[in-house]
Amino acid sequence: MQDLDILIKDGIVLTLDQSNSVIEKGCVGIKGDSIAYIGNEYIPAKEVIDAENGIIMPGLINSHTHIPMSLFRGLAEDISLKEWLEDYIFPIEKRLTPEFVYTGSLLSLAEMIMTGTTTFCDMYIFEDEVAKAAYKAGVRCLLSEALYDFPSPNYGSIDKGFKYTQWLINKWKDNPLIKIGIAPHTLYTCSEPVLKKAKDMAQENNVPILIHVAETQDEVNEIKTKYGKSPVEYMNSLGMLYSHVIAFHCIYVDKKDIQILYKYNVKVVHDPECNMKLASGVSPVPEMIDMGICVALGTDGSASNNNLDMLTEMDTAAKLHKVNKMDPTVMDAITVLKMATINGARALGIDNIVGSIEVGKKADLIVLDTNCPHMVPIYNPFSNIVYSAIGDDVIHSIINGKVVMKQRQLLTLELNSIIEEAEKWAFRIKKWLS
Amino acid sequence: MQDLDILIKDGIVLTLDQSNSVIEKGCVGIKGDSIAYIGNEYIPAKEVIDAENGIIMPGLINSHTHIPMSLFRGLAEDISLKEWLEDYIFPIEKRLTPEFVYTGSLLSLAEMIMTGTTTFCDMYIFEDEVAKAAYKAGVRCLLSEALYDFPSPNYGSIDKGFKYTQWLINKWKDNPLIKIGIAPHTLYTCSEPVLKKAKDMAQENNVPILIHVAETQDEVNEIKTKYGKSPVEYMNSLGMLYSHVIAFHCIYVDKKDIQILYKYNVKVVHDPECNMKLASGVSPVPEMIDMGICVALGTDGSASNNNLDMLTEMDTAAKLHKVNKMDPTVMDAITVLKMATINGARALGIDNIVGSIEVGKKADLIVLDTNCPHMVPIYNPFSNIVYSAIGDDVIHSIINGKVVMKQRQLLTLELNSIIEEAEKWAFRIKKWLS
Repeated sequence: MQDLDILIKDGIVLTLDQSNSVIEKGCVGIKGDSIAYIGNEYIPAKEVIDAENGIIMPGLINSHTHIPMSLFRGLAEDISLKEWLEDYIFPIEKRLTPEFVYTGSLLSLAEMIMTGTTTFCDMYIFEDEVAKAAYKAGVRCLLSEALYDFPSPNYGSIDKGFKYTQWLINKWKDNPLIKIGIAPHTLYTCSEPVLKKAKDMAQENNVPILIHVAETQDEVNEIKTKYGKSPVEYMNSLGMLYSHVIAFHCIYVDKKDIQILYKYNVKVVHDPECNMKLASGVSPVPEMIDMGICVALGTDGSASNNNLDMLTEMDTAAKLHKVNKMDPTVMDAITVLKMATINGARALGIDNIVGSIEVGKKADLIVLDTNCPHMVPIYNPFSNIVYSAIGDDVIHSIINGKVVMKQRQLLTLELNSIIEEAEKWAFRIKKWLS
Repeated sequence: MQDLDILIKDGIVLTLDQSNSVIEKGCVGIKGDSIAYIGNEYIPAKEVIDAENGIIMPGLINSHTHIPMSLFRGLAEDISLKEWLEDYIFPIEKRLTPEFVYTGSLLSLAEMIMTGTTTFCDMYIFEDEVAKAAYKAGVRCLLSEALYDFPSPNYGSIDKGFKYTQWLINKWKDNPLIKIGIAPHTLYTCSEPVLKKAKDMAQENNVPILIHVAETQDEVNEIKTKYGKSPVEYMNSLGMLYSHVIAFHCIYVDKKDIQILYKYNVKVVHDPECNMKLASGVSPVPEMIDMGICVALGTDGSASNNNLDMLTEMDTAAKLHKVNKMDPTVMDAITVLKMATINGARALGIDNIVGSIEVGKKADLIVLDTNCPHMVPIYNPFSNIVYSAIGDDVIHSIINGKVVMKQRQLLTLELNSIIEEAEKWAFRIKKWLS
């Protein structure tokens, strides 16, 4: 074998491949942007990263975010969803600027890299700013501009919103890390023509649709009243269900809905912490997984979570469903870890290149430090990751073959200046609300 | 004012006093083992700790642990409680030795200090080893030897268990950090004479009773079948309800039970992550708080959690009850933070000396770093602590006026040798089970 660019040595390698292979005292070799070697040998490499008996695993995939909202973290807490949206989020979002979105994105990108996320799936406004920030950070992503009937601070009317989305698709189409999708916001904020146009545009461009579905009982009631159908049935009636559709939340889906989602191979993203914090409800995730639906994991925005830590999100996902079903055997550690890795890749349509450690796949990898008391001992590394680890245990992060964090030092972003800028925005927001 | 021993300067001071005072750009001064100053002045001190605009708050109180069980972390996962206990925990616990308990305790003490816990409340076997480890670590605690009808690997028959407990009480009675309580394990593992003797002994020695109560539906069924009463009613009939009783879990308590617990000022400890992971159920904590019961927070053992991180435990506590009640306003951030601080102190009977930052109280303090992306911005520090922070954000820790962690370096424990010893025990345990 030709020399490698990077060799990560001496870790427990969790491949998350089809047989969930684990390699003790393992090494992973990288050449260019790809994984070139997995095994126990010390292959010569330009750069050697010592995992120091830690865990080497695929980078985490956060399949539902609104990353610029990190600037709203903790702004309004422990209040009803209506009050949260109407008294805080919407009034501020009306005043949003590209600069706000760029700063909030950088803050979240720093957090995601430092907590092991190497790919995220975002929906917001001024999404080109998210793309620019992700480009700077070197983080893989699927991005989308939120489309809805009411005026947007970015594009104004919806026609311009579609044009903006097409412009985004064209602008980023050759970038290896950044992909663009089409995001009709919800079934109740988009009229039928907007939903249909979104679908047509997605199919013409061969890109995914991203949409919030059945997140609250109010939404279900509204759709049932208007169309006499459940949200899932309504989407079906519009021809909006197929394998390239990413449905966020899916809390209020019944048996029939679940069968429909399965039939059309729709991808579902579960966001337990946000659903709990906003008291939206508990999604029937074990039922959807049993049916064979691909369920991925997300944090949602950090205004309603309030962080982007996928390691603690996995823990909560596993525990929430155990107590909800009164069955400690549901949502075992490997199932949940797959939701945060390979299922995320499948949901985003990139499982051919990321989501597991396999030769030929892109090198999106993280190393977890296990020389800390809460990660000792290791009887079963899957359990340690899901139930014991926290975001700060991630010590190195590599995306597309490039080291973006080493020894917890960010290499593509300057943290202090990002924090300074974020604090300036928080100061302005407090003034807006006072 | 005479010179201080330690001044912690330039932090947001969350006092958690009766009015939840917050001091921006605040300082806390320590003289000897006590808090001597709270304010904005830089009082001269032998040692100055710069909080660097982080958060200065009372140390966290973990009100329910079995700390030696850290050596079982991740040993057996995603299985039923019966299988977990009968196939794994009980067979190993039969072979326990003092050395095992000492090593497991040191591992947990390192974890607790590194995640902001300054006081814990423990029940296990060979508890003198826990005391010795806590003494070495310099961590405040209430400790108890588990008493039950069947033979213990420590004391053998129950009579010797009571003698051991009395010996523990006498041995540690003059230690400023270590207090001993009496721990009848549960209502179904202790006969009525054992429960009564435990109560008498607790009252004679003026020490608390620690007991698991109404943790599972099976327990309730067993007690109802045997005695025709709910667990709480049964305790009442034995005269075992009063203000010095600490009841762990209290999941299966109905309105009448809650009224009884309130009437006798019994202290309740909630352990949400363990209750979720073992699928035990959801305790009616909001109802108990509404009634006026003092509810504290605990992690339980790290074999069923699987860490001792009180910062992520608070997050889960808040979110679990919001979704369970379908109301985002229940269990707000301050309520939950009080459970992990001053309510813990009240539960353990030490709220006169710890649980809040007040002049004259013992100096049990932690400093959280906020120069990390997931803690930015800070609109409301209570929210950042409960919803955004993780254990590793704790950067300095002081117990009884002594710095036990500085810049994340443990000053009373040697982490590498503890991890090495813990790994040796894990190796032995794997052999026992194979």
